[in-house]
Amino acid sequence: MLKHLFFLLMLGISLQVYAQSPNPHARLKELGITLPEAEKPVANFVKWVRSGNMLYLSGHGSCGAPTAVDRGKLGKDLTTEQGYEAAKRVAICLLATLNDATGGDLGKVKRVVKVLGMVNSAPEFYDQPRVINGCSDLLTQVFGEKGKHARSAVGMASLPGNISVEIEMVVELEEE
Amino acid sequence: MLKHLFFLLMLGISLQVYAQSPNPHARLKELGITLPEAEKPVANFVKWVRSGNMLYLSGHGSCGAPTAVDRGKLGKDLTTEQGYEAAKRVAICLLATLNDATGGDLGKVKRVVKVLGMVNSAPEFYDQPRVINGCSDLLTQVFGEKGKHARSAVGMASLPGNISVEIEMVVELEEE
Amino acid sequence: MLKHLFFLLMLGISLQVYAQSPNPHARLKELGITLPEAEKPVANFVKWVRSGNMLYLSGHGSCGAPTAVDRGKLGKDLTTEQGYEAAKRVAICLLATLNDATGGDLGKVKRVVKVLGMVNSAPEFYDQPRVINGCSDLLTQVFGEKGKHARSAVGMASLPGNISVEIEMVVELEEE
Repeated sequence: MLKHLFFLLMLGISLQVYAQSPNPHARLKELGITLPEAEKPVANFVKWVRSGNMLYLSGHGSCGAPTAVDRGKLGKDLTTEQGYEAAKRVAICLLATLNDATGGDLGKVKRVVKVLGMVNSAPEFYDQPRVINGCSDLLTQVFGEKGKHARSAVGMASLPGNISVEIEMVVELEEE
Repeated sequence: MLKHLFFLLMLGISLQVYAQSPNPHARLKELGITLPEAEKPVANFVKWVRSGNMLYLSGHGSCGAPTAVDRGKLGKDLTTEQGYEAAKRVAICLLATLNDATGGDLGKVKRVVKVLGMVNSAPEFYDQPRVINGCSDLLTQVFGEKGKHARSAVGMASLPGNISVEIEMVVELEEE
Repeated sequence: MLKHLFFLLMLGISLQVYAQSPNPHARLKELGITLPEAEKPVANFVKWVRSGNMLYLSGHGSCGAPTAVDRGKLGKDLTTEQGYEAAKRVAICLLATLNDATGGDLGKVKRVVKVLGMVNSAPEFYDQPRVINGCSDLLTQVFGEKGKHARSAVGMASLPGNISVEIEMVVELEEE
């Protein structure tokens, strides 16, 4: 009986430790996600800037070869479920940039601080939060509690190249 | 005569101290505003994240039971005056979250740094600043000079649940 | 022969130092740009807030007397080239505010950290990045590598007073 309690207690502690401090790279592997190479902008800006321990990431669309969910307006061309998928695909590109910015060690992330989720929206589309959940869910799967961020999820009149979702974020890194 | 001058001098200093360092909770009481409980998000994000002395607040709509001004597009369903009222109601919810984030002591606020005021706008609505003044005015009433922030007030194609106004902000807290 | 090599080496080093550490005021002069006086907002907000070494600049439109490119929607009233010009004009106003915030010494800028470029856009206008390049190009001309920022360039349903472009930015200053 006591043994069982002890076992459950240890299990509970282990799960909590796991939830609080996941290894982001191991999590990505479990999720079957391989990060692409971070892309380089073609104009006079960069994908990220570090200032102190804060990383500012540029607005990202999806990267790599576009799929059916990556272009179009929500509430007109795409369903909310497709938008969710698009936001998840954008999150993977944000993670690729973050991986580049941390020298390949996502374990340096102390906290995902702020996400601005911009959804290419028809004037009567009201489900931006369910779309941006595609990004928020993945960040939480990869970083656990550290992945939970302050967020806005809002509707844009249009986005570059008619991409469906653009997301920028602010991330705090561990002291070096 | 000298007494009068001395009195006026003291009055001036007192007013200045008062203007610079209001007690935010006393100000709210004077304004007849009772802060609601801070709401909890239902998805994988949070209402605020603290990073060092900086607080990042999620995009907020109005909280509690919605009123006639809380839903709809400016320039189509609502007047600028109604938008002002909506922005004020959103500011009250931001203050409720700020109160939660500061452990119930708004006196810890060193400066409201940045406000992004997003107005659900018809394509020909151009009065976003007068709408977001509803938030800026309240912040200044509550915090005095500390409440004066950098700001953008802009028109969105649509907002979650067709809310009329969504506002996010960055706040600096006093060193602990 | 050796002398020539030495000269070329020194020239190369000098050019690199110049590229990395331009004097922003000299660059502005070369570009034929005179900064206007920073404008003052008429409501309860300010053009910039400093928090530690970080400067948060309010959303800026163009300043001074408006020209043909400063008002209207991209994809309806204005071409991308006109938008580029408008974004450049907005950047000049941001620099005027930055000049005010640094006490007239743009050399205090350590890095332009983040730019949010908001373009007044018809629903089918997709060229926001080429518009906001008007700002990014000028920032890079004035500050060199320090001017390269994280960026989002997105389409708004409408902007205050029907301005064509509104830009806000975050700038890191040198330690004092």
